[in-house]
Amino acid sequence: MTTSRLEAFSDGVFAIAATLLILNVSAEGAPLGLQLLKIWPSYVAYAVSFITIGIIWANHHTVMSQIAHVNRLFLLLNVLFLMVIAFIPFPTRLLAEHITNPASIAYGITLTLTAVSFNLLWRYAAAGRRLLRTNADARTVEGIGRSYLPGPFLYAAATALALVNPYASAAFYTAIAVFYVLESSIFGGRS
Amino acid sequence: MTTSRLEAFSDGVFAIAATLLILNVSAEGAPLGLQLLKIWPSYVAYAVSFITIGIIWANHHTVMSQIAHVNRLFLLLNVLFLMVIAFIPFPTRLLAEHITNPASIAYGITLTLTAVSFNLLWRYAAAGRRLLRTNADARTVEGIGRSYLPGPFLYAAATALALVNPYASAAFYTAIAVFYVLESSIFGGRS
Amino acid sequence: MTTSRLEAFSDGVFAIAATLLILNVSAEGAPLGLQLLKIWPSYVAYAVSFITIGIIWANHHTVMSQIAHVNRLFLLLNVLFLMVIAFIPFPTRLLAEHITNPASIAYGITLTLTAVSFNLLWRYAAAGRRLLRTNADARTVEGIGRSYLPGPFLYAAATALALVNPYASAAFYTAIAVFYVLESSIFGGRS
Amino acid sequence: MTTSRLEAFSDGVFAIAATLLILNVSAEGAPLGLQLLKIWPSYVAYAVSFITIGIIWANHHTVMSQIAHVNRLFLLLNVLFLMVIAFIPFPTRLLAEHITNPASIAYGITLTLTAVSFNLLWRYAAAGRRLLRTNADARTVEGIGRSYLPGPFLYAAATALALVNPYASAAFYTAIAVFYVLESSIFGGRS
Repeated sequence: MTTSRLEAFSDGVFAIAATLLILNVSAEGAPLGLQLLKIWPSYVAYAVSFITIGIIWANHHTVMSQIAHVNRLFLLLNVLFLMVIAFIPFPTRLLAEHITNPASIAYGITLTLTAVSFNLLWRYAAAGRRLLRTNADARTVEGIGRSYLPGPFLYAAATALALVNPYASAAFYTAIAVFYVLESSIFGGRS
Repeated sequence: MTTSRLEAFSDGVFAIAATLLILNVSAEGAPLGLQLLKIWPSYVAYAVSFITIGIIWANHHTVMSQIAHVNRLFLLLNVLFLMVIAFIPFPTRLLAEHITNPASIAYGITLTLTAVSFNLLWRYAAAGRRLLRTNADARTVEGIGRSYLPGPFLYAAATALALVNPYASAAFYTAIAVFYVLESSIFGGRS
Repeated sequence: MTTSRLEAFSDGVFAIAATLLILNVSAEGAPLGLQLLKIWPSYVAYAVSFITIGIIWANHHTVMSQIAHVNRLFLLLNVLFLMVIAFIPFPTRLLAEHITNPASIAYGITLTLTAVSFNLLWRYAAAGRRLLRTNADARTVEGIGRSYLPGPFLYAAATALALVNPYASAAFYTAIAVFYVLESSIFGGRS
Repeated sequence: MTTSRLEAFSDGVFAIAATLLILNVSAEGAPLGLQLLKIWPSYVAYAVSFITIGIIWANHHTVMSQIAHVNRLFLLLNVLFLMVIAFIPFPTRLLAEHITNPASIAYGITLTLTAVSFNLLWRYAAAGRRLLRTNADARTVEGIGRSYLPGPFLYAAATALALVNPYASAAFYTAIAVFYVLESSIFGGRS
């Protein structure tokens, strides 16, 4: 089986999950002008989740470009991974409504699971070069593995922080997204 | 007519139906932490439906890879099949809210219809090798037919069980999804 | 410009408009079993709209397969056509809730506009073979034009009927969808 | 990296953002016929936003057809651009509900950001022909840059007008969409 239809389905889930995030942004009550200012956390939550999904989509693309063929277990791992991606709008809504401990923990667990399942997906494909293209560059393959490794630990740390202080935790999630944006801005033009 | 645009439209419906499932997960009332634990059935319903759609998507891919061209009747059968797929979020929401007999029966009828219409789709294409690729392997074709046959009966049995006990029925739906996950985990890496 | 990205965008709108229809199906109140039976009009409305969108999607595919290249005006006509397609879930919801004159008129106007804008799209492309493939078969081109012509008149008639009797009108919409299904079942296997 | 998967993801977001607009159209209260007339602003808002997204989609296509490859920074700029596109349904809902100063300002800021981020995207790709195809025609490239330049200023002017008069501002947004439609109608058939 080739990877093209897997990518079409995955792109669909990425695009829909990202676009559904806007349903979490809503302003009610009067005066509207004031309400639109008061709901600033929902703008931040929208932006952080959208950028996070966008970056994972770009990374998913990088992974798929190294893969020659897929088997049924990889398909399944990809479905489980997408199941976590498509879950993101729910904790985003919770966090947009009130920056509380449970909301921030739910958000953190979801992003931790995203990072974990993405690592699983890659490691299953890369172990013994199981599904990789024969001409996949060894240094690129190693580089991918190394760059995805910190994700689960970063998000787990932010989740642990949510137990103590939901605001600090939300700032941490934002910082991770900003970090990826800055990293792409500084190094992204070179490759 | 080639199959590529049929797959694009189908992938779209699969991806959207799966991603819309998250709209069924919602937590209201206080305290939020407790509510997030109390709504565990909606997490299970989300996971079971997402995995079920994901597996049907993978099977749809397998079917399409054996098909050389499509005619207008196949297009129509595919539309009817997708109509049932896109219906799944509704009974999922019912079951996520309350595990009752009517909710579990509605869920079961939908999944039974999914399995029936998928079998119809395949059997129409495969009968007399009507739409198959000329080089489609006879054993693969037979294998596909055989592996899809139990679906309608399994889901019909789970639906019948819902008349008696909705919890047992919901456990049955979950078991079918877990079975497919385990089957893919054990056998899926070989092919 | 080639037609592939136009088709990708169009397929996306078709798939989403069809899949969003399920958001119009909802059961509230007790007992749930009875409610699920009482909302039968919303199942019919779901099925009729889904099949209608599915058939228009198949026809859109037929049109695009005859087209070699697109210009900016065709792009715009396609956007206006998709704007009407994406509107279908709204009157479907109205009709699913209550079969009243205004609901049935709104549904009829939308489907009439769909048929009109689809004819416009085709006639613009086909006039003087403006955008057609050089090897487009003259009889196929004529056949497409002829088969799309009755659509606006049929839906306009059903809309006029809605002024008098919304139930008769709803039955008419259903009959048109059933007609297309039967026509595909009888003639669709031959081509 | 080639541009095809970037286009698939972008097309998905465009198609979903456009199709989600229909969720903003709703009629409640009695009599339904009167309500359906009274909500005319939501039809206009739907049409203006749908056409605006459709035109930006067509322009995005034009840009991508000049681009040979993308780098990580371009991917990120595209994600930020899509983040603004996917935001459009929210201010559209506000404006559809009540044509007030804050609603019209929110709508204007969103469309201004859309035009700004689209210009950024193009200018980053075109500066020094960084990502362009080697055979990209110099006059076409210049023409694209020139035709996108007025967008941010037009929308910023309409936003400023919203501070004074939300109706005049809403008419301005509509006029911009109508202008693009007329421009495509008059000049679009030639290219």
